[in-house]
Amino acid sequence: MIQGERLWHRLMELGEIGKQDSGGVTRLSFTPEDRNAKALTASYMKEAGLEVREDAVGNLIGRKEGSNPQLAPIIIGSHIDTVYDGGRFDGALGVLSGIEVLQSIGDNGIILQRSVEVVAFTDEEGARFGFGMIGSRAMAGTLKASDLAHCDQEGVSIQEAMLQDGLNPAELKKAASSAIHAYLELHIEQGKVLESQGKQVGIVTGISGPLWMKVTLEGEAGHAGATPMRLRRDPLAVAAALMVEIEQIASSYPGTVATVGKLQVYPGGINIIPSKVEFSIDLRDIDAVIRDQAEVRIRKAIQTTCEAREISWDVEDYQRVPPTPCSEDLQAVITEACIPSGVDPVYLPSGAGHDAMQFREVCPIGMIFVRSREGISHSPSEWSTQEDCEKGTELLYHTLLLLDGR
Amino acid sequence: MIQGERLWHRLMELGEIGKQDSGGVTRLSFTPEDRNAKALTASYMKEAGLEVREDAVGNLIGRKEGSNPQLAPIIIGSHIDTVYDGGRFDGALGVLSGIEVLQSIGDNGIILQRSVEVVAFTDEEGARFGFGMIGSRAMAGTLKASDLAHCDQEGVSIQEAMLQDGLNPAELKKAASSAIHAYLELHIEQGKVLESQGKQVGIVTGISGPLWMKVTLEGEAGHAGATPMRLRRDPLAVAAALMVEIEQIASSYPGTVATVGKLQVYPGGINIIPSKVEFSIDLRDIDAVIRDQAEVRIRKAIQTTCEAREISWDVEDYQRVPPTPCSEDLQAVITEACIPSGVDPVYLPSGAGHDAMQFREVCPIGMIFVRSREGISHSPSEWSTQEDCEKGTELLYHTLLLLDGR
Ligand SMILES: NC(=O)NCCC(=O)O
Ligand SMILES: NC(=O)NCCC(=O)O
Repeated sequence: MIQGERLWHRLMELGEIGKQDSGGVTRLSFTPEDRNAKALTASYMKEAGLEVREDAVGNLIGRKEGSNPQLAPIIIGSHIDTVYDGGRFDGALGVLSGIEVLQSIGDNGIILQRSVEVVAFTDEEGARFGFGMIGSRAMAGTLKASDLAHCDQEGVSIQEAMLQDGLNPAELKKAASSAIHAYLELHIEQGKVLESQGKQVGIVTGISGPLWMKVTLEGEAGHAGATPMRLRRDPLAVAAALMVEIEQIASSYPGTVATVGKLQVYPGGINIIPSKVEFSIDLRDIDAVIRDQAEVRIRKAIQTTCEAREISWDVEDYQRVPPTPCSEDLQAVITEACIPSGVDPVYLPSGAGHDAMQFREVCPIGMIFVRSREGISHSPSEWSTQEDCEKGTELLYHTLLLLDGR
Repeated sequence: MIQGERLWHRLMELGEIGKQDSGGVTRLSFTPEDRNAKALTASYMKEAGLEVREDAVGNLIGRKEGSNPQLAPIIIGSHIDTVYDGGRFDGALGVLSGIEVLQSIGDNGIILQRSVEVVAFTDEEGARFGFGMIGSRAMAGTLKASDLAHCDQEGVSIQEAMLQDGLNPAELKKAASSAIHAYLELHIEQGKVLESQGKQVGIVTGISGPLWMKVTLEGEAGHAGATPMRLRRDPLAVAAALMVEIEQIASSYPGTVATVGKLQVYPGGINIIPSKVEFSIDLRDIDAVIRDQAEVRIRKAIQTTCEAREISWDVEDYQRVPPTPCSEDLQAVITEACIPSGVDPVYLPSGAGHDAMQFREVCPIGMIFVRSREGISHSPSEWSTQEDCEKGTELLYHTLLLLDGR
């Protein structure tokens, strides 16, 4: 049995850090807000009786030692950074439910064989640098030194931001963890499947892979009043035509999504035909083959339209994460844990990416979803009820006990 | 006879103020660059023997007293502010050619009956506040105190910017000038008509009217991975569809132009479906009826698309300047001045707006255009040759003499 009130109180308290006028939360990585959130989370870990440490990339780790030191540990992870003006559940619930589970296990006098670590991973969202899951990549051993060159809007690189935050990028390799028995993550669904089925929680079958691209279009600036329509090489007009096509391409597959979330126009004057436009594409599918098809069609559209309109173009990757299936064994364990938790098991894929993906080649991964109100996330309106958060945490609790061999 | 070398030297020297790495020039109104440009221009006015003053709105005025104080003065005006990363000819050539004409008249020992004032008007471009021709509106007596509420990107209003620049907005009315005999302006064409006809200079028949609007679209933020395409209310996808339509509507009339030069996406994260988009529309035609038609079609498109996609919208005016014909009498005087200037007269409309428009109800207006290389303007590539600038200034010189009754 976990303590739902304690969990909820922490969730609301943590949500005050980085709170905006909109009611949303902005906690970008390596900022003072991120630091404050880590400090508060560390205090919760200590209350839960965990041994707290921070690794080279800033992952905050709370460890509960198991009775058998021979056995590889179990990781329960998620993140406490947010997007710009995001919600208070995305990520935070996963970390706090992990802490709650270990604290309740202690409260209930249970001693586990395996050590368990609850991790608040650094920068899952990728909001600041256009490159996410930094902490989980580092722990999974796939973060390259060259990845630290990604820059934020002010031109500050991950490397520089780490140094400013008191971290040592040269020690990155030390964050890698080899022997992990299993990786578990609880997260809000951020979609409408559970709500539409009237279910509080669900078991994740696999995670859609985010491909993030940056498109740059260059044309020719000119006078908005004196340049006839047919003589223009307007990159924003071309970007508009492309955004219409991108939406159509994504909509032609049942599970594909494509989003342009960021777009900048240069030089950006009312009476100047733009010379340059940069925009992002976030393209995802649970099926790698379909995502590849959609990507090919989008690239073809960019080429065709730009050639026809004498616009030069460039497409580069921000990040390219493959779709990741969840472990069938772990899905079975979670299914079994549904019985003591009083849950009717349902299965669903994840459209959002998660730190879990980074462990795809390290250990089996398992994920639990908690219902999101109206499926809204990455928004101040993101919400899950206290009862649903409790139910998911309960399921995580029983999953952990089963996984430890009880 | 004017002194082309002197004119050219000043044009290049003034073009150094606010110069960017691109080679372009950025001199926004009420900035230190604008101040420096005014100081340099004032020094040229003094070299030309003019009496220099600045009015309440910051218009820089160089006056040559005429022999007959009963006669209303002639104004030769243009501007020395620029758009973001603009060229060194747009505006500056008009002011410097006016100074050159008056200096040459002095050099040549000619005494005019009428007083002549050369004016560098404050903020013609509208680049900073989305509202232009501030100085010429003030002199024409049409600038309202409420117009000073327009704000720049940092939220600084025209009123505040004036105060910061040492001007007194309360004295605005003092800038209004009532009795003006005629208004003359020389400007680069900013289009390709003269170049395509192999002409150095031309006589302007009328000026296209800029209508500047701000469109705000609001939808619902959401998670880029977890929100299926059909459940989105994405204002950027709608803005894209509208930009495609706006381009089509403008292209369906021979002389209409429509430009989206400025666009902002909120909150602007790669993996966040945007909640809000703001963009500008610059719509122009020389024919008011056609511009009205195009505006109605654009507004209809906004309404239809937003309704269909459950996006809320708002359209407001930044500025709405009517198309303005040039005086037929002054066109005839300029035509006559073509003979001593060695010019074969050609006539063309102006797609770009000019300070001249503001005097439409004050006095007859006349304009001379100088050929632009490839028609490019509002761009670092803006260029006119020294010979063409000289030829236009020569034509302005003879026009002024004829207008003074010689
Ligand atoms: N779960 C989640 O919001 N992850 C952020 C990365 C992404 O999927 O965009
Ligand atoms: N001539 C000129 O560039 N004017 C600026 C106002 C406009 O026409 O956009």
